[in-house]
Amino acid sequence: MKWKTKITKVEPNHLVTKGYRQEDLIGNVPFAHVVYLLLKDELPSEEHGLMMDAILTACVDHGVTPPTAMASRIVASGGVPLPTAVAAGVLSIGDAHGGAIEKGAKFLQDAVSQMKKENKKIEDIAKFLVKDSSEQKKRILGFGHRIHTSDPRTKKLFALADKLKISKEHIALSKAIEKELEKQTGKKLPINVDGAIAAITSDMGFDWRLGKAFFLIGRVAGLTAHVYEEQTGFKPMREMFTADVEYEGPCEKDLS
Amino acid sequence: MKWKTKITKVEPNHLVTKGYRQEDLIGNVPFAHVVYLLLKDELPSEEHGLMMDAILTACVDHGVTPPTAMASRIVASGGVPLPTAVAAGVLSIGDAHGGAIEKGAKFLQDAVSQMKKENKKIEDIAKFLVKDSSEQKKRILGFGHRIHTSDPRTKKLFALADKLKISKEHIALSKAIEKELEKQTGKKLPINVDGAIAAITSDMGFDWRLGKAFFLIGRVAGLTAHVYEEQTGFKPMREMFTADVEYEGPCEKDLS
Amino acid sequence: MKWKTKITKVEPNHLVTKGYRQEDLIGNVPFAHVVYLLLKDELPSEEHGLMMDAILTACVDHGVTPPTAMASRIVASGGVPLPTAVAAGVLSIGDAHGGAIEKGAKFLQDAVSQMKKENKKIEDIAKFLVKDSSEQKKRILGFGHRIHTSDPRTKKLFALADKLKISKEHIALSKAIEKELEKQTGKKLPINVDGAIAAITSDMGFDWRLGKAFFLIGRVAGLTAHVYEEQTGFKPMREMFTADVEYEGPCEKDLS
Amino acid sequence: MKWKTKITKVEPNHLVTKGYRQEDLIGNVPFAHVVYLLLKDELPSEEHGLMMDAILTACVDHGVTPPTAMASRIVASGGVPLPTAVAAGVLSIGDAHGGAIEKGAKFLQDAVSQMKKENKKIEDIAKFLVKDSSEQKKRILGFGHRIHTSDPRTKKLFALADKLKISKEHIALSKAIEKELEKQTGKKLPINVDGAIAAITSDMGFDWRLGKAFFLIGRVAGLTAHVYEEQTGFKPMREMFTADVEYEGPCEKDLS
Repeated sequence: MKWKTKITKVEPNHLVTKGYRQEDLIGNVPFAHVVYLLLKDELPSEEHGLMMDAILTACVDHGVTPPTAMASRIVASGGVPLPTAVAAGVLSIGDAHGGAIEKGAKFLQDAVSQMKKENKKIEDIAKFLVKDSSEQKKRILGFGHRIHTSDPRTKKLFALADKLKISKEHIALSKAIEKELEKQTGKKLPINVDGAIAAITSDMGFDWRLGKAFFLIGRVAGLTAHVYEEQTGFKPMREMFTADVEYEGPCEKDLS
Repeated sequence: MKWKTKITKVEPNHLVTKGYRQEDLIGNVPFAHVVYLLLKDELPSEEHGLMMDAILTACVDHGVTPPTAMASRIVASGGVPLPTAVAAGVLSIGDAHGGAIEKGAKFLQDAVSQMKKENKKIEDIAKFLVKDSSEQKKRILGFGHRIHTSDPRTKKLFALADKLKISKEHIALSKAIEKELEKQTGKKLPINVDGAIAAITSDMGFDWRLGKAFFLIGRVAGLTAHVYEEQTGFKPMREMFTADVEYEGPCEKDLS
Repeated sequence: MKWKTKITKVEPNHLVTKGYRQEDLIGNVPFAHVVYLLLKDELPSEEHGLMMDAILTACVDHGVTPPTAMASRIVASGGVPLPTAVAAGVLSIGDAHGGAIEKGAKFLQDAVSQMKKENKKIEDIAKFLVKDSSEQKKRILGFGHRIHTSDPRTKKLFALADKLKISKEHIALSKAIEKELEKQTGKKLPINVDGAIAAITSDMGFDWRLGKAFFLIGRVAGLTAHVYEEQTGFKPMREMFTADVEYEGPCEKDLS
Repeated sequence: MKWKTKITKVEPNHLVTKGYRQEDLIGNVPFAHVVYLLLKDELPSEEHGLMMDAILTACVDHGVTPPTAMASRIVASGGVPLPTAVAAGVLSIGDAHGGAIEKGAKFLQDAVSQMKKENKKIEDIAKFLVKDSSEQKKRILGFGHRIHTSDPRTKKLFALADKLKISKEHIALSKAIEKELEKQTGKKLPINVDGAIAAITSDMGFDWRLGKAFFLIGRVAGLTAHVYEEQTGFKPMREMFTADVEYEGPCEKDLS
């Protein structure tokens, strides 16, 4: 029983990752490019490399409001090692937190591939998708944000994708959906940072199943900072977050 | 009850991390520099930024042999989301895996601070430390590797630290200990990659309590690649790792 | 913003869980019954309580072969606290490991509810389900085991369900499927322990979404024993599991 | 390279755990006794079995206030599988949360062993320990609670330990320390539930290194209930906990 990996060859004094000797990568290839290499099996062009770097930075932190940071800080306050607390934050990355990148990318990739097969226009596809999702009472993921109406990260990422000539059909479709959403619903539901990363990484040719990976790799840097701040600046078990909770379970009674 | 954070200010359409607007960082400041910013409260010089980038890349992957990768792949094979499996690998980063960076850095930082106070020479300190640890039957952490006798990552990192003029007392002490270990024990116990990162980050002025953080942030990229490879290329619950285990518990008996 | 919980009321010197004062539960109600109370909002009958107890024990351990135990032991060997290592094993409980309880229970509950609506016989439903799954090339979950042909846990659990008069339609359907599988495929695919727990908890009236919960709560006891054995009996970072892995990634090349 | 385990022998159709066939344990031996067997290598007496059962129940839940429950619920709200969210809660069990059982048990076991060696009286040892800890400004762990002044779980556990004739030196020392704390400091610092479990499991002969295990195994039941309630009763990513946080990091500035 033998199995194969395409990631790293390990021999004494010799480490080759995705075809490159680690000593060649170290200090010569920026870390974000190495991430790209690991997830896409080749080094990026300068444009793709810079875009990947920008995406990772766009994910680093959003204060203590998201589940990632809250989970990491709470677990840190239990008095555990730094990696244990960082991992707790990573665990909260799921269908509802970061998941819009994965599902959004799948949605866009399916639609674009359909569009090409049926030789349709982006605007028509967008109109259909918004109508269809509203009829089926499904949300299209990657639009709207509980805090930002014009997310500075989204704007910067899209501007960069344009400048680096990375923008193609997936981004175009994403922007067409944004317009249609406003037209059909009357509400502004701007593309959020998850939606932007879904569209951009799709135009970069990434598998949608890696959607949560970009967010995770970037966010781990911020989580590390949160855990370090908690461990060095606060007492364990401090009251950090509060909840206004009421018990409405079965009435108090005696054991029969 | 109010608490304070130095990491990120979150306001509608406005995100400021360690003093910089996120839209300014994205695409302008390399991700490794942003990591530095998050952990050290200031942007690095070009030299420090490049060194941090090199350190992260030096940590990305070591094949499927270390606990990090084994844990991530095994957990992935249970049929769980990518972040859950990546987090499992992060959990294995402990005192024995990556921990030599933390403990090694503390050891070097304590020794250098003692050395300065007592106005001693590096060579004398190294001689004393090696003798003392051998008398107390304690290992000095960060020396020796189960696979590599001349780790290509270590060599490259030290060469870079020299070239970038980052090398100072901590690296010097680390190298002096390496020599003393050979002299006093007769065995070659070369500085390993954990030991190198401990010495270099100490010379860069990082808190030893961040020792595991550098390893973690770099390694997460490799773990993501392992989980993705497992999820897209293999069947769940495959027999991946084998163990030659024998039961030597209490003899089989009837319930009395 | 207020939210409600049905689990525990916390007041100074007063803890009420699902309607019962904790001091009344402690020492008076067996732990397995408390688990039942937590998951089903009422204390069990003696029969249901004993069945729940048996199910938890049936899940405690299967040696070091399953992902749960392997993950916990590997993570323990990194030198981390006991709970961190136990949690790593829990993370591997997924669609492919323990997941057959959840999916199997949903499958049985859907089928039984359909059966009642259409007033059909169990044997006919079983025949249809096996034929349908074979035509759609889908596996029915909860049948067959990589090691056991006649799993001692399954036999004991079903015998107990009969004795305690818990066996109803879901168990009957499960056994009818087992027979049909052999008839239609010619192969023996006996109900495994996951399938047995799926059927029994369905007959006990549990929500299929709790499928992984029974396994998890029982298994945590075994994982704790594994981590304790690893931490007290072995060296950190020992070579515990081996893999026969070959690198088949891109050929080694120079950076261009 | 072969290694040995004392936990479970796995053979086709044959599972032996700590000497007992699993089909014999299932339904015949209460789950809490099986936990005892796993952690202590023998089945308990009726008294020890009941005490273990009581301890597990005493740990099940404390509402949403402790890190365990907060972490599990927050991670659940990210949209992840039940075991992932339960594991996140387990991760928060650390030196400051549940850790008093481990450290408290070590403290008591060391003191009792010292006491026997030096043939001293419990009252004298207690007096010395309280004085010493106050001089060294160290807290004795297991005393005082942020909510309860007379914890109903503690009272019940101690009453049960008396009734079952389990109470010996460790419990006696624990109560003597409680008295001395009040005498020397003037403040009431009653033994909390962690302290009670530390003392009782010490009198039962358990290794202090298992301190967090009892808490973990019991608490997992409550965490499962929390995650199930969150997943079935609430929307993902709801605002669950709030924090009053202020940014006091570096002032906002332009990139230079």
